[in-house]
Amino acid sequence: MSITKPSLPKGTRDFSPVEMVKRNYIYDTIKTVFRKYGYAEIQTPSMENLQTLTGKYGDEGDKLIFKVLNSGEFLNEPKKKSFDFVQDDNSNKLVSLISEKALRYDLTVPFARYVVMHQSEITFPFKRFQVQPVWRADRPQKGRYREFYQCDADVVGSPSLLNEAEFILIYHEALTNLGLKDFDIKINNRKILSGIAEIIGKPELIVDMTVAIDKLDKIGFEGVTKELLERGFSNADIEKLEPVIMLKGSNLEKLESLKNVLATSAIGLKGIEEIETVFAYVSHLTSHISNLQLDITLARGLNYYTGCIFEVKTNEVAMGSIGGGGRYDDLTGMFGLKDLTGAGISFGADRIYDVLEELNLFPKSAAQGTKVLISNFDEAAELYALPILQQLRKQGIAAELYPSSAKLKKQMSYADGKNIPYVILIGGDEMESGLLTFKNMESGEQEKLTITEIIARIS
Amino acid sequence: MSITKPSLPKGTRDFSPVEMVKRNYIYDTIKTVFRKYGYAEIQTPSMENLQTLTGKYGDEGDKLIFKVLNSGEFLNEPKKKSFDFVQDDNSNKLVSLISEKALRYDLTVPFARYVVMHQSEITFPFKRFQVQPVWRADRPQKGRYREFYQCDADVVGSPSLLNEAEFILIYHEALTNLGLKDFDIKINNRKILSGIAEIIGKPELIVDMTVAIDKLDKIGFEGVTKELLERGFSNADIEKLEPVIMLKGSNLEKLESLKNVLATSAIGLKGIEEIETVFAYVSHLTSHISNLQLDITLARGLNYYTGCIFEVKTNEVAMGSIGGGGRYDDLTGMFGLKDLTGAGISFGADRIYDVLEELNLFPKSAAQGTKVLISNFDEAAELYALPILQQLRKQGIAAELYPSSAKLKKQMSYADGKNIPYVILIGGDEMESGLLTFKNMESGEQEKLTITEIIARIS
Repeated sequence: MSITKPSLPKGTRDFSPVEMVKRNYIYDTIKTVFRKYGYAEIQTPSMENLQTLTGKYGDEGDKLIFKVLNSGEFLNEPKKKSFDFVQDDNSNKLVSLISEKALRYDLTVPFARYVVMHQSEITFPFKRFQVQPVWRADRPQKGRYREFYQCDADVVGSPSLLNEAEFILIYHEALTNLGLKDFDIKINNRKILSGIAEIIGKPELIVDMTVAIDKLDKIGFEGVTKELLERGFSNADIEKLEPVIMLKGSNLEKLESLKNVLATSAIGLKGIEEIETVFAYVSHLTSHISNLQLDITLARGLNYYTGCIFEVKTNEVAMGSIGGGGRYDDLTGMFGLKDLTGAGISFGADRIYDVLEELNLFPKSAAQGTKVLISNFDEAAELYALPILQQLRKQGIAAELYPSSAKLKKQMSYADGKNIPYVILIGGDEMESGLLTFKNMESGEQEKLTITEIIARIS
Repeated sequence: MSITKPSLPKGTRDFSPVEMVKRNYIYDTIKTVFRKYGYAEIQTPSMENLQTLTGKYGDEGDKLIFKVLNSGEFLNEPKKKSFDFVQDDNSNKLVSLISEKALRYDLTVPFARYVVMHQSEITFPFKRFQVQPVWRADRPQKGRYREFYQCDADVVGSPSLLNEAEFILIYHEALTNLGLKDFDIKINNRKILSGIAEIIGKPELIVDMTVAIDKLDKIGFEGVTKELLERGFSNADIEKLEPVIMLKGSNLEKLESLKNVLATSAIGLKGIEEIETVFAYVSHLTSHISNLQLDITLARGLNYYTGCIFEVKTNEVAMGSIGGGGRYDDLTGMFGLKDLTGAGISFGADRIYDVLEELNLFPKSAAQGTKVLISNFDEAAELYALPILQQLRKQGIAAELYPSSAKLKKQMSYADGKNIPYVILIGGDEMESGLLTFKNMESGEQEKLTITEIIARIS
């Protein structure tokens, strides 16, 4: 066995105990809210058949799918011989001969596959959440990884806009529980965007229009104008678009203006009505919600969504969106199950992690580590400590006995390194009196206490 | 986009909401015990560099590693051209050209890599646990999957046998908490096996010896004799072996007999001493432990382990081992970090799942699903229900409002399908009086209660 200096594949990460506690805190907070709103967890395999994934993410997406090599002596199988390795110098063709499986690219397509495969066992409307890693052969960069977790909640089989309203509440509750104070939940509706393109008389350019106006934040109205002209809109079109894009005021004011602008577009008015219904549900469910904003420039993956769309941004840290989603009317159609409406949202757990880190919002109490270390002076003290150790654990207290009679300094730095808040010191005096020295590692204070008193102190 | 009838790759599984609740129950129970004993969670990436994994699992293991194809137009890269696809018809060589990454095969080698890569940040002794899936291109069969979870706890950097004693307590506590009542924790020591081979005068045949006697349970002493003769032992050797293999009595009696047999083997006596120390620790830690058995025929992966070895079996269901582990003295040596001793155990979560299922041991209270469904009669009732819905959730109660005014029968079968234990029915009478109809779905009983009373009833 040759010795190799170990390294990690590009764009992948190890998570240390401290990082895992924080990651679990985020996942658990989000999962708890999902469950409270009636969503149930499922998991799907990391590998899917290649044909399940291919063609679902566009050409660019297909290239980013990690393919898994067939196992065994795959070149010796007769059918592989049909590939002329000299003439036919094409990666894609070779892939089709030597790979039948791939790592999932997102949680949405596997969910669609799940719904179709298990449709007879599922109780509809089916509200599921899923928190699992996905893999993309993207070029790694700051905040972009080749393996990362998605946290998705989707409902299929219910057209009710109550679902959309509850997504807003889920975002509000989960992010508030995570300690975020200032974030925007942006909402728009694909039908409103269709209506706008219709009114301008360029329904065929809806994708170009939305791609351009989606950039308003970044490039301003002048930049958007330039891009719209390049994408086939006229100055007259842009004149009509301007008041819609630059819409100001409260959500109600925006809706009133839009009603005038879209008065002759049935689909546009339908979009407005859907937003109004969602707002009505929200106001009946709760008296307070974070900054919920109707944002006409919000586009997201339009080919995919057909109704309301969402995006969540924090205002406390410069960071892209930390969540998004929307309604899609035909997700399972790709697997032959037609007319099943769905809606879903996603939390960007990795970005939320960075936000909480920057704002120092991870609670101390999120620590799941060892609560007490018992020092180990010598063999007699070790034996004396063993039943005490077990007594602590019986009370549900995570406890350790230092596993050798090393120098006290070393034992203390072990407690420090693991962020253990309390140390119990047991020497000759303690064994004689039964009063143990209980040290608070943060304050440095020491007290003589019985084990019962210590347990009461910690619990 | 062509429509494909979806399927799953061989040997992989979807987990439904009901299955996930049960799986989480197992993981959470085990994790809670790991934490109580001072183990902290880490995670490593699903993909490792191929060279990290290759050569660590033997030739057979190497074949079962799932390789991940390099991304992009890999055939066009110049260095790939050095492979003559016509002449050089060898899968392994092609793999080395088109694949640099693989899915992890277990959690142990990635853990060794982790320790070596992060040695400067780690506080030793390092006690970590890890619960993640692993992948093996094994032929799928009942109970054997290509993707499955491992639940491992390992400590590195501590030679103390207290760690081994605590592993026994961890097994006892976790399996007891899962409801198992009759299971054996078997212990042996590699040094005892070495001592036995030494006494017979065939130390070079230790692997053959242990492979043979490991089968005593299945093929009896006659079968073992036959196999030992085939593997190069003489009848005289077997005569010496018989009393050792067939050792009966309590652990203490076995140890006394072994001391006589191994009186002239230093390594054998060392193994006995280690077992005695572990037993002493256990008896100081707890007054009761499940059937802890010294089993001289227990072998496990001998090339790997160097001290105590463990295996756990349930006696309530016919099933292979549901856990195992041991001490290895040089795990990180493969990555250049020498002389770091380690010890670890693993829980077979998939098998434990099958055992709990067969014994009907999954607690009802493990249900994490929706607690209350509010029926939806019409628009007025829906509006009336919204603040009540949110009031339930504020109390931490997972609640849903049926998202349309479908027929009551359909709403009730939704509650049944999701195993929702309570339904709140709201119609005209209820809205007028404020007394809601509260239905217990199991007993079928109905009562008229205020929402405050309902919350008190459920919590």
